Amino acid sequence: MASDCVFCKIAAGEIDSRVLYRDELATAFWDIHPVAPLHILIVPNRHISSVNEMNAEDEALVGHLVYVAKLVAKEQGVDQAGYRLSINTGPNAGQSVFHIHVHLLAGKPLPIHIG
Amino acid sequence: MASDCVFCKIAAGEIDSRVLYRDELATAFWDIHPVAPLHILIVPNRHISSVNEMNAEDEALVGHLVYVAKLVAKEQGVDQAGYRLSINTGPNAGQSVFHIHVHLLAGKPLPIHIG
Repeated sequence: MASDCVFCKIAAGEIDSRVLYRDELATAFWDIHPVAPLHILIVPNRHISSVNEMNAEDEALVGHLVYVAKLVAKEQGVDQAGYRLSINTGPNAGQSVFHIHVHLLAGKPLPIHIG
Repeated sequence: MASDCVFCKIAAGEIDSRVLYRDELATAFWDIHPVAPLHILIVPNRHISSVNEMNAEDEALVGHLVYVAKLVAKEQGVDQAGYRLSINTGPNAGQSVFHIHVHLLAGKPLPIHIG
């Protein structure tokens, strides 16, 4: 755990947040600045700053984030209408918290021009 | 392999495409309809229709796609400026090919409103 990382603190239950899923590897919670009707973040409980810092040994953990996103999408009832999963890395993608997080976006037709 | 799946055929080398990375699990190639200066797709060589069809046993494979994206981003020199990885599922996200693919987008500041 990185002592000054807000997502580490959420994963550890040290910050009050709207958590909707938690297991020993990952935590999912509502984004406080939603950009879609449904906007949830899924993070690893262990600190990894960004995809750039991901090692081959982290593949199963990062894949687990996608699997949790699938479970949450189904539980929220958006799996058939559709959803987007995005991971931002670095300034051009607007990464603002340096702890890997998957954005789960749904609830409306999302812009096709994903770039 | 799904016999009518274009991404299966690309992964198997049966369709001519601009492949820039291939290993025993994944293939990366340039998107033919780029929406950013750099737009690359990373697919599993094995057919999985969408995240909705992903099983827990696929976690390492899906995580490998993200790891390959990291390697490709570094090789293309966009790792420090930043990049977005997106996986679209279903109609609201505009999924058009039903074989899981990670979009790697980079080369300019990407819209913050990722939804």
